[in-house]
Order: sequence, then structure tokens, then C-alpha cells
Amino acid sequence: MGKIVCFPSLSAEQQQRILDAAPGYTLTVSKAKEIDPAELTEAEIIVGWSPLVTEHALKKDSLLKWVQVWSAGVDNLPFSDLEQKNIQVTSANGVHAIPITEIIVGMMLSHSRWLRQAMLHQQQAEWKNPGKPLPELHGKTAVIVGVGEIGTEAARILKAFGMNVIGVRRSGKDVPNVDHMYDMSGLHEALGKGDYVINILPLTDETHHLYDQTAFEHFKKGSCFVNVGRGPSVDTEALIRALDSGQVAYAALDVFEEEPLPAEHPLWQKDNVLITPHIAGSTEQYTDRALDIFVENLEAYLAGKTLPVNLVDYSHKY
Amino acid sequence: MGKIVCFPSLSAEQQQRILDAAPGYTLTVSKAKEIDPAELTEAEIIVGWSPLVTEHALKKDSLLKWVQVWSAGVDNLPFSDLEQKNIQVTSANGVHAIPITEIIVGMMLSHSRWLRQAMLHQQQAEWKNPGKPLPELHGKTAVIVGVGEIGTEAARILKAFGMNVIGVRRSGKDVPNVDHMYDMSGLHEALGKGDYVINILPLTDETHHLYDQTAFEHFKKGSCFVNVGRGPSVDTEALIRALDSGQVAYAALDVFEEEPLPAEHPLWQKDNVLITPHIAGSTEQYTDRALDIFVENLEAYLAGKTLPVNLVDYSHKY
Repeated sequence: MGKIVCFPSLSAEQQQRILDAAPGYTLTVSKAKEIDPAELTEAEIIVGWSPLVTEHALKKDSLLKWVQVWSAGVDNLPFSDLEQKNIQVTSANGVHAIPITEIIVGMMLSHSRWLRQAMLHQQQAEWKNPGKPLPELHGKTAVIVGVGEIGTEAARILKAFGMNVIGVRRSGKDVPNVDHMYDMSGLHEALGKGDYVINILPLTDETHHLYDQTAFEHFKKGSCFVNVGRGPSVDTEALIRALDSGQVAYAALDVFEEEPLPAEHPLWQKDNVLITPHIAGSTEQYTDRALDIFVENLEAYLAGKTLPVNLVDYSHKY
Repeated sequence: MGKIVCFPSLSAEQQQRILDAAPGYTLTVSKAKEIDPAELTEAEIIVGWSPLVTEHALKKDSLLKWVQVWSAGVDNLPFSDLEQKNIQVTSANGVHAIPITEIIVGMMLSHSRWLRQAMLHQQQAEWKNPGKPLPELHGKTAVIVGVGEIGTEAARILKAFGMNVIGVRRSGKDVPNVDHMYDMSGLHEALGKGDYVINILPLTDETHHLYDQTAFEHFKKGSCFVNVGRGPSVDTEALIRALDSGQVAYAALDVFEEEPLPAEHPLWQKDNVLITPHIAGSTEQYTDRALDIFVENLEAYLAGKTLPVNLVDYSHKY
């Protein structure tokens, strides 16, 4: 009888979905730190990740065959050990597409339609008009930097709003709803076309401080910058200079070089910055959506088929 | 040689669009109050509306054949006089579909994705999490009350976000992207299904105080209310009670029974209310979009055809 160990917290109903899909298997749902190490050694399938998995489930006598990671990123996993034991890894890549797209649009509209400014006036009980007609998203250009699962969904929604959508991705390959795709060598050219630049890139050596002084100089004067990717992709000092000069008219930032953002950081005080505390990906639907991925993989696993969703290639590590 | 008189301010380029479409016509662009009354009497086509039109262009010897109103509503026009002189009226209905849809979505997301709350914490330089996963629009239900041009566009966008879309309109007739349409007799039933209720109704005798105590009692507990229609459709005292009891968790209001909203009004102080100063319909694209309607009508007019866009039926007054 196989054993499934699951670290993420699941409701009774969510646990039942797993049990229904895997008759004859036992399911242990527990925080990694609170679990009997023997359970990890005996686990055939582990859902989630913890350093304790390396310690107890990658031993010679462990039974582990498959890890379904609960996050999109898998860069912290011991791939050589996993490969040596021929343990498959699947990620929860894709679960962020909907929540992050929604916050991107919210960040764009809260600026373009004056909602942030109206809130400030509301605090003073002030009925104050913008004094000029407001811009629309419709007809404007969005540059999505990093077009994976999230960027593809963002492109679909921004296209529905009638935007021109430009993409930048390593492969340069087209995706639906992106009018023109650049590879990374075209980044600066692409940045110059955006009324809105939206960063969704993962953090790698290549993307560290990708948004530096030179990059911001290529931005269209008065454009808006949304960062829901990773903080260290931005040289924060360069961003502040761009905000102060008006090169960037507005920045909505969910991620920062240092998190939490220190209380004395100058970004907090800027009128033209919206700060959210790294909450873009977390919504009520996260667990159910990750569970959809796991259960689909589980059914294939039990049927002896290749895992269909997000099977990680050891050599690429994603 | 025919004369066109236009009250809305137009750029040189926009004026040229009219002249190009109407060779041989003269165009006078001027505020109504600053125009020589003789010009109104001689005008064959008037763009915009002013009480001075009634005074000078509906006289026995005036030459007026057609009024292209610059707003969506035409309820303030002297229809019997216009009908008697057989003067056609077209409206700019439809120009608000895109801007108002954008602000609706911004108002919804600024709440659901915690952007309003994050702004308050930002003022205190406070890195503070919501403490629980946030809701998504995806999978939730929007009830659009008043499904005309704006509601149809809102339905399209909200459907793209993966929402269930319910509509309420007088005719009860289906439109694309609305999963279920009610006529007005089904209003209270429809209200009970909405995670978001969005009012876009025009103001008529029938819609005055449509959102009264009884209506709010039919709202789903903890739902959100967006009003971008007209202020007097809402009994404000009843709304405040619903906000205080938690029946309505959040209200985003662009219109009010009294405008400007008086400084001492209790709505200003509510944490769960977002107030915008009647700005939902005004964007940079307004004039070009209204001009699209006028020029299309103008070309048909000069070809002796029926005016194709928004020809007002005297008997219905819209």
C-alpha cells in the first residue's frame, strides 16, 4: 500500500479528492516539521517541499518516486540527488496566472482611473476632479517582460481591454494575444514602446538588475512600471531616479530588493508609487488550483503514464 | 452651402475630419454662449446641445435638420418641438462603454486585491499582509443591472476574467457574455446571486431609489456594490445601513444623490467605501469616439440615407 505525504494544509474535502483518485493509498497531511521522519522515508509520493525531504526521503532505503512541489519555482531542489534516484518532480507552475493577472490589471487601473488619488481626497472629504480627461487602457501599449504562464494570461486580458500587447521572452516565440514578441536582446527597444511595462520575470543571474539606469532611460517618458516578478530584477536606486525625473510616471510594486521593505525606505513616501507587500500570487483559489495539477498528475501516475502537468526537466531545472 | 455648428471643443485635426466628410459645408466651432444667434438660425446641423438651440434654431425660419447630441442621454431635449419641425436627433450613446467598464473593473480589483488597504498601510510605511488569502474575480458572480452598451461591454470583460455574469434589463433580452438575463421583475432574485452588484441604470421614475432597504436585504451577505449609473437610484440611508451591518462589504460609488457629496456626509469617512467624484465616463478618448459617431452619421446624412448610429425615436426619447 503506497503512502502519500502532503505538507500543505488541506480541507477534509480536498483530502478526499486525493484519496478518491488513489484508492488503496494512505494520505498523511502534516507540516514537515511535525511529521515522523519514518513517514518521509516510506513515502512514495510527497506533496510540497522541505529540506527534511532531502534528509529523510532521498536515503538509500527510501521509497520516494515523485515530488509534487506546491510552488511554481523549483530552483531550490537538490536536482542531482533527485536525478540519481530517478525521482520525478512536478511543479505547480501556472497557479499564479489568474491571481497575478488580476492584480496587474488592478494596479494599472487604480492609477489610470484616478482611484488612488480619489482615495487620498476621500480622506480629506474633498470632492476634487482630476481636472483633465483620464487615460484609458484601451488603445495603449503594454509591454509584458517574461511571457510564461502568467504573461500569457495577462496578454489575454489586456488584449480584451483593447491594448496593444508587446512581449519579451527568452525564446522570442509567439504566444496568442501578443502582437509582437521580442527576445531578450530586444528588451530595450521593447521598453521604449510601452505605456505600461509589466515585469513578470523569474530571478536568475540574467535578470538581476535587468531594470537598471540604462533600461529606465529606454522607457517611454511618462510610462508606468508594474513589478510582480522579483524585486532584485530592479535596481531600486535607478527606479527612484526615474520616478523623480518623471521618466516613469507611476510604479506599482509587489516585490522589492529587500523584503519587508524597511520603514525608512524612500519608496514608501512617494505619491507616484503603489506598494503591496508581496501578495500578488496568494488568493483563496491557490490550493484548489494546485490540487487540480496534483490530481491530474496522480491519475496519470497511477495509470503508469507520463506525468502530464509541469514535469520538471532535471537539466533545465524548471 | 450648408452650415454645421459645433459646441464641443475640437482640435484642428478633429475639425478637419468633419470638413473632409462634408465638402462644401462650413463649420463653426464655438461655445454655445459665445456664438452669434444668427449662426444657430442658419445651422443645418448642430453638434452638441444648449437651451439656445431651442431659442434660435427651432424658430419658423431656421434651417436645422439634424442635432447630433454629444452625450448619451437626451432626456432634456424638447421632443415635441423637434418632432414638429421634423428635426432628427442622434445621441452619442455608446461612448461610455469602454471608459466605464474600465473603472468598474478598477473599482472591483482595488478592493478584492487589497490595493485600497495597501495604500493606507503605505501612508504609515507599514509592511502589512492581509492575513488571509485574497478573493479573485475569477469564478465569482457579477450582477450587472442595466445591460445596455456599457453593460454589454462590462459583461464581455468580466467574462474574460472568468466571472459568472448575470444581467438585469427591462427587456430581459439576452446579450453575449451574460449567462443569465432577468427582466426588472427578477431584480431582487438577481441581487441575491451577486458577489458584485454593478448598477449602470439610467435615472427614470422607475429607477429612483431602486436600491432601497428591501433591495439591500436581498443582496448576498458580504457582497460588493458598484454604482456608476446615477446617484438617485440609491437610497443612500439604506446603503449606509447595509454597509454598517456588513450586508454590503464594500461600495464603490461614482455618483450620489447629492453632488458634489457634501463634506460632512458620513460616506466620506467609511473604510469600506471608495468615492470617486463622478468621473467614470470622462476619458481622453471621449471626443474622438463621439466624433466617430457623428462622422458616420454625417456621411449617411449627405448620401441621403437614414442616420445609422443612435437615431433617437421621438416617442421613446432614447
